[in-house]
Order: sequence, then C-alpha cells, then structure tokens
Amino acid sequence: MALPSAQHPNSASRAAPVRLDLSTPATELTAALVDLESVSGNEAAITDAVETALRRYPSLSVQRLGNVVVARTELGRSERVVLAGHLDTVPIAGNLPSTVVDGRLFGCGASDMKSGVALQLRAAHLVGSGALEPAVDLTWFFYDCEEIEAERNGLRRVAAEHPELLRADLAILLEATNGVVEGGCQGTMRAVVSLTGRRAHSARSWLGVNAIHLAAPVLRRLADYAPAVVDVEGLTYREGLNAVAISGGVAGNVIPDGCQITVNYRFAPDKSEAEAERQLRTVFDGFAVEIVDSAPAARPGLDQPLVRRAVAAFGGQVEAKLGWTDVARFSGLGIPALNFSPGDPNLAHRADESVDLALVERSERALLEFLTAQPA
Amino acid sequence: MALPSAQHPNSASRAAPVRLDLSTPATELTAALVDLESVSGNEAAITDAVETALRRYPSLSVQRLGNVVVARTELGRSERVVLAGHLDTVPIAGNLPSTVVDGRLFGCGASDMKSGVALQLRAAHLVGSGALEPAVDLTWFFYDCEEIEAERNGLRRVAAEHPELLRADLAILLEATNGVVEGGCQGTMRAVVSLTGRRAHSARSWLGVNAIHLAAPVLRRLADYAPAVVDVEGLTYREGLNAVAISGGVAGNVIPDGCQITVNYRFAPDKSEAEAERQLRTVFDGFAVEIVDSAPAARPGLDQPLVRRAVAAFGGQVEAKLGWTDVARFSGLGIPALNFSPGDPNLAHRADESVDLALVERSERALLEFLTAQPA
Repeated sequence: MALPSAQHPNSASRAAPVRLDLSTPATELTAALVDLESVSGNEAAITDAVETALRRYPSLSVQRLGNVVVARTELGRSERVVLAGHLDTVPIAGNLPSTVVDGRLFGCGASDMKSGVALQLRAAHLVGSGALEPAVDLTWFFYDCEEIEAERNGLRRVAAEHPELLRADLAILLEATNGVVEGGCQGTMRAVVSLTGRRAHSARSWLGVNAIHLAAPVLRRLADYAPAVVDVEGLTYREGLNAVAISGGVAGNVIPDGCQITVNYRFAPDKSEAEAERQLRTVFDGFAVEIVDSAPAARPGLDQPLVRRAVAAFGGQVEAKLGWTDVARFSGLGIPALNFSPGDPNLAHRADESVDLALVERSERALLEFLTAQPA
Repeated sequence: MALPSAQHPNSASRAAPVRLDLSTPATELTAALVDLESVSGNEAAITDAVETALRRYPSLSVQRLGNVVVARTELGRSERVVLAGHLDTVPIAGNLPSTVVDGRLFGCGASDMKSGVALQLRAAHLVGSGALEPAVDLTWFFYDCEEIEAERNGLRRVAAEHPELLRADLAILLEATNGVVEGGCQGTMRAVVSLTGRRAHSARSWLGVNAIHLAAPVLRRLADYAPAVVDVEGLTYREGLNAVAISGGVAGNVIPDGCQITVNYRFAPDKSEAEAERQLRTVFDGFAVEIVDSAPAARPGLDQPLVRRAVAAFGGQVEAKLGWTDVARFSGLGIPALNFSPGDPNLAHRADESVDLALVERSERALLEFLTAQPA
C-alpha cells in the first residue's frame, strides 16, 4: 500500500518548519531533537530549526554552509573552544517518537548524539542570552552526514573549504561517552584482501582454482589475530582487526575465480595511518591487499592545560575513545580534542537506544562549569 | 540510448517465423539453429520453427506442450528409443551470428547443444520422409529452459504432467560428448553452510562474535577435501566439492553476525541423493547445513542390451558423464540413458564455443547406423 504523500517518511523537509525553544531544559530539548527525524541525508529540517533558533541571539554570528551551521562568539578571549556535534542519525528502527521510561529517554539518536547536541544548544542559549559569561570564546558546529561514508561528512567539507573556521585551542565533540571524558580516538582503516582463482565448470572443478577456498588462510589469520592493547598517555586503547564483509561466487555451477574480504583495522593513536597500513600488510603478507578507506587516530592530548581544565570540570575520569570520531579532524590540525556527553556509546545504533536524563542534567552542569572556569 | 523496439534483443519471438529445412545437411542445419537465438526463457521462435518443420511429416505424430515439442513414430517396433535435446542456450556473449573457421562452426549453442538438436531433426527428416527405416520406434523431445533453475526445465514439466510420453527402452540425450558415449551422469547437490555470530560495533569487536572468522574452518575443510574417484560399471567418475558462493557482512563498521557459504557437491552414481547428503553432513559436521537443491546421479546402465548396441554404433568408447544432464530424469524412471553428440563439453558456456563440423557428420552417420541396426 502506498502512503499518502503527506506521510512520506522522507517528507520532513517539506513539512512546516519546526521551532526549537532553546530556553527549555536540556532534557526536553533532547526529546524535541530526537523527535525531529534526521537520518543521514535528510538533515534539512533539523538544520533549518537549529539555524533559526541560533539566529535569535544577536551576540552570536551564525553561518549556514549547506547543512552545516557554524555559530561563534567574538568576545576577545585568549582561548577559543569548539563545541561540535552531528545532527544526523542512523536509520530509525521503529524507535520514534521518543518515550520516557524510568528516567531514560528512548529514541533514535538519544545517545548518538542528540543529547550532546542539546547541550551545545543550551550553551548557545545561555551565552547568547547573556545568562552565562564564558571564560573562552566559543565556536559551535552542527553538521550533517557523520553516520555515512566519510566523503559526505559535513565537517570534513567545512574543514576543507574553510579551515580557518576550525581554529581553536580545544575542540569538544559531544559524542556519546556516558558522562566521562573519552580522550583522542582510535584510527580506522579498511582494506580489501583479494583472492584470485580460475573459473571452471563445477562438474570439472580440477580444471579451475577455487578463489573462495584460497580465502581459508586469510580467515585463519583473522581468527587467530591477537589485537594489540596499547597505552597512550595513560589511556588504554584496545585495537581490533576484523572481517566486515566477504563475497565471492559466479553461479551455482561455476568454480569462482574471485573472493574479496573487507577488513576493518581499528588502531590506537600510537600509530600513524602509514604505520597502520604496514601492520595490515604484515598480517596479510603474501596476499593482495588494497587500502580502500582510512581515517587517522587522535592522541588524547592530556598534557594540554585546557584539556586538563576540561577533564577536571567533567569529573576527572578519562577513558580511551575506541570508536573513530571527528576529534581526529581537529587533532590533525594540531587542535587538542576530546569527547564528552551524556550519551551511552554502547547503546548507539541500537533500536533500544536511550539516554539517562539525570546524566543529561549533570553533564550540562559540568559543561557550563568548564565554560565559565577561569584559567588557573 | 534506447534501441528501436523492432531491434529489441528479446524480440525474436515477434519477428517473422523462421523456416527450418530439415533436408539440408546436419552442418548447415546446426548453423541455422545457432543463428536462431534461444537464450533460456526466449525459446518461442525456435520452438515454433521446430514444430512447423516436424508437422510436415505425416508419419510423425507431433504434440506441442508449452515450449516443448514431442514427436513420435508408431511403427509397432518392439523397442522404443528417445532422442532428447534442449533448445535453449546460455546468454549470448558476442558470439552470434555463427561463423565457420577451419572446419569449426563458432556460435552460442554450437556445442551445447544445437549440433545435437540438428542430429535429432535430421533423424526425424529421414524417418519422416521414408528415407530411413528405423529398427526401433522413436520419440523426440525438444524442450526449453534446461540451462536455468531446475524448476523451469521443460522436460521436467512434461515428465510430471505426461510421464507416459517418456516411456522407452533407451533415452539418448544429445548433450555434448565430443562424439563418444558418456554414460550416466553425476548428481549435483547444493547446500548452504551458515555461521552465526553476534553483532557489535567494530570499534568494540570483543563484544561481538565475528561470523566471517567462524568460517575459517569451513573453508579449510573445503580446501583440504580430497574428492572421491569412483568406478561405476568400469567408468571413472571424479567427484567435486566446492564453495560456489560466500557472503557475509552488515556494514563497514559492524562485526558481522552471519556468513553463508554455498557449496556444490558433484557426486558419482554409486550414491543416492540421501547418501550424498550424509556425505555432505559428515564433511561439515558441527556446522549448520541446509540442502537447497539436489538432482540425482544416473548409473550408466552399460549392461543393458540396447545400450550395448548404441555404444557399438557410436564407436565403442564410453566415458563417464561428469556434468548433470537430463539422463538422470530417464534413469529415475528406470529407463537406461546415455549422452552422445558431436558437441565439445569443454567448450560449453564459453564465448568461443564451437563444434567440429566433420564430427557433426560422423556423429550423424553413427546415430543413423544405430537407429537402423537390428537387434542381434
């Protein structure tokens, strides 16, 4: 049955504009953001809402670059801090609209990362309305397409076209960290290991070479691989090397001449991308390896004074960030960066994604404390 | 660019009917059949041409059943022989129209199996016109959809709906055998071996179980498997067990929870399908195995007097048929069956498919010799 066009699931951008009231508590703002569906590629409506809300504060300079909104203070402070977050989510999984059960808000993006975006917007409201006097200048980034291929990431595009906008002394990514600081991030590299055989009719298999059978030692190396556990600046990064896809086969009666295994290597910030590639090529020595995708790791930068101040404000506990985040983009520009938000990284991308509303409130207080903390 | 509809590649069935003259030599008839494109599912035009040509002989009773043509003599002989062949081909591969180079006819279906169909039609012409007095009654089957999924095979449908039409003392399948007799055929069974893991984010791979890694021992067993070489009635059947497809993977950042390996077991006629299944389940003991497709083997039946007469007429040499053919359908009804034609099985399904025209002539003489040979 076709849906009436007014109910088309992708029609959000054509519906009446949604108004976000940034003066509401962070918990309610999180719910409003979750209910504003924004699966990657469909961020126009939420971006419109964020832009419109921010433009109400004359003390913030607001720019729209595609589906990226950049807001800045120009208070003449000696330090500048970035608060960055993506507006998109993974596909909804029957988990909209949001619901509250036992103090947790359930819904697509609750943890990854609309509770973080709510804290960004709350800080903008308090600073923009004059209710909060920050000790640092601030730059906000709200961007699109983080959950899909790296090429489409809105922050990547802005960094390439307007690198000066990213300049800062510290970047805080409001990615899910369960209310503690997660420092740096691991790098991620994808490679395709290809096996090449020779086709033949499967009734005369000895005339061919079965490329799928040739993959046996590749899978054995993966199954036997003991990933490194690496200490960087006192944080423990646990690596991983995994097949994420395998394909091969021509027809049900043909000995296949090709088999491809896509592997994903998550590497600690003690390694550059070049070192990670060398490690991958060592593991698969003797096989054809093509690197198809790569993003660098980021060191936690815990020796930076501004990072130390943030860690103190955020409760003092620091963990290693295992997933890749856009902290690496700032780190690559020489800008210390960390992850902090009330979202639970273990619930990201799950149908039962939720966030602890009390932790949203505590994290907001910690963020505001940091923004007003004077340098020692 | 869209083609004008008159040149639509599938429009053969809408073009003017093609006339087949069965009085032309077998070599020329082969070329005419090859040039009448008949990729599986598009056999209407060639079936029309065959039906029309056969209806010119009042001594043959001709039936059309879908895209299957059945012709019969009713001479009151004590024995009946089936001459059967499929009219369809695999997809054309830039190899039409046919060309003759150094005594070989090149073109899609030249070996598999329009040279065989030409011999069927030549026998029908000579018997139908009274030029040849057969020692046996004859039944011809010309059928569709042999090269695709078993379910659509025209002979399968006729065997299910009109089993009495298949009754005979010997069936000769004019499948490619390079001018020698190939006895019986191997069976073929496809099974899916499934590995089940647990999803997780690839940055936290230890929370999941990688189903692709679990496939390592399955591929190892396949790579190490030593297929049986089986003697049946003096013929050597060489088995094969091969992966023909593998797939697994959810997304580039997800530990996959499933991996499927499709294997194809070609088994000798010393085994029933049940025995073949037991063998497969033994090989993959400990893994989830689902049988998805199966066709029985056929014994060569060389002890049957009529088979012995055919072998003598066809040159005395007998090989094992390694590929599956519709001989198994007759064998399953208790009817001895063999494969014989000038086509080269090693060239079947290849872009450079061709047939030796001198062998077409020799094979025609051998077939006619058998049809007129009196029982000893």
